[in-house]
Amino acid sequence: MTWTNSKDSALRERAMAVIPNGMYGHQSVMLMPDDYPQFFERAEGAYLWDVDGNRYVDFMCGYGPNLFGYAHPEIDAAYVARLRQGDTMTGPGEAMVELAEAMTRQVSHADWAMFCKNGTDATTMALMIARNFTQKKTIVLARGAYHGAAPWCTPLKNGVTPADRANQVFYDYNDVESLEAAVREAGSDLAGIFASPIKHDTFIDQEAPTPEYARRARELCDEQGALLIIDDVRAGFRLARDCSWSLVGVKPDLSSWGKAIANGHPISALLGADIARFAAATIYATGSFWFSAAPMAASLATLKLIADSDYLERTIALGERLRTGLTEVSGRHGLGLRQTGPAQMPLIMIDEDPTGAKGYFWNNALLKRGVYFHPWHNMFMNTAMTDGDIDHALQAADDAFKLLKAAGPLEPVAKLEFMHAMVG
Amino acid sequence: MTWTNSKDSALRERAMAVIPNGMYGHQSVMLMPDDYPQFFERAEGAYLWDVDGNRYVDFMCGYGPNLFGYAHPEIDAAYVARLRQGDTMTGPGEAMVELAEAMTRQVSHADWAMFCKNGTDATTMALMIARNFTQKKTIVLARGAYHGAAPWCTPLKNGVTPADRANQVFYDYNDVESLEAAVREAGSDLAGIFASPIKHDTFIDQEAPTPEYARRARELCDEQGALLIIDDVRAGFRLARDCSWSLVGVKPDLSSWGKAIANGHPISALLGADIARFAAATIYATGSFWFSAAPMAASLATLKLIADSDYLERTIALGERLRTGLTEVSGRHGLGLRQTGPAQMPLIMIDEDPTGAKGYFWNNALLKRGVYFHPWHNMFMNTAMTDGDIDHALQAADDAFKLLKAAGPLEPVAKLEFMHAMVG
Repeated sequence: MTWTNSKDSALRERAMAVIPNGMYGHQSVMLMPDDYPQFFERAEGAYLWDVDGNRYVDFMCGYGPNLFGYAHPEIDAAYVARLRQGDTMTGPGEAMVELAEAMTRQVSHADWAMFCKNGTDATTMALMIARNFTQKKTIVLARGAYHGAAPWCTPLKNGVTPADRANQVFYDYNDVESLEAAVREAGSDLAGIFASPIKHDTFIDQEAPTPEYARRARELCDEQGALLIIDDVRAGFRLARDCSWSLVGVKPDLSSWGKAIANGHPISALLGADIARFAAATIYATGSFWFSAAPMAASLATLKLIADSDYLERTIALGERLRTGLTEVSGRHGLGLRQTGPAQMPLIMIDEDPTGAKGYFWNNALLKRGVYFHPWHNMFMNTAMTDGDIDHALQAADDAFKLLKAAGPLEPVAKLEFMHAMVG
Repeated sequence: MTWTNSKDSALRERAMAVIPNGMYGHQSVMLMPDDYPQFFERAEGAYLWDVDGNRYVDFMCGYGPNLFGYAHPEIDAAYVARLRQGDTMTGPGEAMVELAEAMTRQVSHADWAMFCKNGTDATTMALMIARNFTQKKTIVLARGAYHGAAPWCTPLKNGVTPADRANQVFYDYNDVESLEAAVREAGSDLAGIFASPIKHDTFIDQEAPTPEYARRARELCDEQGALLIIDDVRAGFRLARDCSWSLVGVKPDLSSWGKAIANGHPISALLGADIARFAAATIYATGSFWFSAAPMAASLATLKLIADSDYLERTIALGERLRTGLTEVSGRHGLGLRQTGPAQMPLIMIDEDPTGAKGYFWNNALLKRGVYFHPWHNMFMNTAMTDGDIDHALQAADDAFKLLKAAGPLEPVAKLEFMHAMVG
C-alpha cells in the first residue's frame, strides 16, 4: 500500500480550530519530521496504524506504556471484567490493597504504595513528602532531567513564576562533585535529592548511573536526613523487575512509577520506605479517578507478567538485535550512529549531525517504510515485537541510509532550532 | 440481610500495612461516621455494594463522576469498543478532535479544549495559562474553595512551602466588596480570578453565585486584562448543559472540567475562549495517558446524552423529591435541616449541631439502612435513581431521626475536631 496522509491532514485542520495550536505536550508532532502522523486509528501488539491506514512497527510504545504489546488480551480482559463490576465508585475496591501488596512485594525498597494517574502526580507527591518529612524546603535535581509537567518541573517556563521554582538546586547527573556542591548549596535546608534511574534526557546521549554517583546520593541523603527519590516513571520495570537503582545496589526512600505498570491503562504510583510512611500519610493528595478499580485490576495482571514471564530478557534480546543490526547497517554505509541507553530503551542519534537534519531525514524515511522511530527521544521495545519486526526495521534503516547518502547536504531543521531557542 | 463489615475490617487491616494510614485523599473514611465502609465490590445504576455485600443507594456518585448511573451500558460499550481498537497509543485518535468539537459546541464560552486526567490538571493549566496570557503572577481566589490537590491549592499545607502559595490573594465568595479589595491588593499584577460555579465548600451551607458578584468578577477581569476562570470540575453539566455560570449570564475565559464528563471514565478538560488560545498553546502540559482514546470515546457518548436526554430535569426532579420529603420528615420529628445547594447537588446539615455529632449519628443510621449519604460534603443525584430509591431514603431518614431523638445528648466527634484543627 502506498503511504498517504490525507485523513491525517484533514484531522489536523479540524484540530487547529478546536485545540490550541492543534496539539499540545509530548504528543505534539510539531517538532517531529514533517510526515509524522498526528492521529492513530488502531494499535495491536507491536503495531500501530495511523488514520490513513499506514501500519508501523512502533518503537515509541505510546512513549512507554506499551510493554507487553498493545491491546494485550489478558491485561485488557482484567480491565473490562472489573469495569463491568464497578470502576470509579465512591471508594476503592479490594484491588487497591492487592495492588499495594503486589507493588511492595515486587519493589524491594518499598513498604507502602499510593496510586495516582499521571507521572507528575507521583513526582509531586514525592516532593511534598520529602518536604513534609524533613520540614525543609530545598530539593536537589539533575540539570535537564524530566520529572513532569507541573509548574515546579515543566521543561518550558511559560506560565511559570520564579516562586514555582524556588528552593531548587541543580547538579549534573553522574557528577559526584557537582552533586556534592548542590547539597552544600542546599545547606541545612535539604529536603531531598531527585534522580532519574538513568540519564534519559531528550536530544543527548543516554547514560547509566555510575555506582559512585548513586551511592554518594544515598550517603548524602543519609548524612542530611533527607530523602532519596528515584523517578522511575519512564524506566520502571523496563530495566529490572525491581526499582531501577536495584541494578546499582542503592535503595531510594521514594520512587515514582507510571507508564508501563498497567501496560497503558491509566495509573501511576508512588512507592516508599517505612521511614517516609507518616510523612506520606499526612500530605493531602487525591484525584477524581485515583481510586478507580479497573486500572488497578489491569496493573495486577501486568505485575503478574512482570514477576512470572521472561519479558525483561525478551525486550533486552530484541533491543540487542536492533542495536547490533543498526551498527552493522550504518557501518556498511560509512555512517556513525550513537546508540545509547539500555538496549531495551535505545536512543539513536546520527553522528556529525549538529542541526539534527540527518536524523530527521533518516527517521522520516523509516516512517515511510512502516517503522516508527523517534529522532530525539529514547524509544522502547515491547514483548509483542518479533525478530521479523526488528529485521524489517533494519531493512528500512538500510534503505533510509541509502537515501540519506544520496540526498547530499541538508538544510538545518527550522522547527528544531526554534525549539532549542524556546527551551533555552 | 443483616449489615456486617467483617471483610471491610480485614481489608482495612491489610491496607494499613501497605498504604500510608490505610488510605489517603478524599476517599479516606477516617473522617466519616464509624461504620462507613472503605472498600466496595460492585456498582450498578444507582447502587453500590461494599465488600461485605451491603447494598446502598449511593448519593455520593463516586464524589461526582456518576451522572447517568454506574456501569452505563452505552457509555461503557463505547469505552470497551475503543479499548479493543487501541487506547493509549503513540498519539491520539480521531476521538480527540471529535471531543474537542463536541465540548466547544456544548459550552458556549469555549472555542478550544485541552484534555487531561485530574481536575487538578485542568485548574493548574488554567493557572499557568492566565499567567502566560497576562505575563503577571497574582491569582485571586475565594477563601475556602477547593481547586485541587497540587501544592498551590491543596487544602492541607503539609509538604507545602510558602513559595508554593506565593502570588495568591483571597476574597469571600459572593462578597463584591471583598472581591474588589482582593483585586486592588493584586494591583497591577493580576493574572486571573478563580471562582467555583457555586459555593460548594465542605462543612458549610452552599450558596449560588449572586449575579452582582459574577458580573463584577467579569468586569474586574476585563478592566485589568486578566482571565476569569470557572472551576466547573465538580458541578460541570450538573447545573446546566453549558458552563455553570451560563445560569447567571457570565462567560468566563477558561473553565475546568472533569468528574462527570465521561460518567466515571478518566478524563478531565480545560476549555477556553479564543483570547486565551495562544497562551494555552505555549504552556507545556502533558501526561502519560492524556491522549488515550477510550475515555474520549466514553466522553463523546456521555456528551450525546447530555445534549439529547432530559437528564438535567430528571436529576433536578429527583433532588426536589428528596428535599421536599426530608423537610417533611424532619419537621415531623421537630428537627431542623439545612438543605443547601441545587437540589441535584444537595448538602444536608442538621440544625443546632455545632460539633457535627448529630449529623454523624444520623448519617451512620442511614448507612445501616442502605442509604449512602455524606455528613459534610455535597452529594449528587444520578439518572439511574428512581422515585422508589428516594422514598427508600426518606423512610430510612425517618427511622434515623427516631433513633437520633431517642439517643439523647451526643459526645462531640473526636475525629471531626482533629480535622478542623488540622485544616485550621
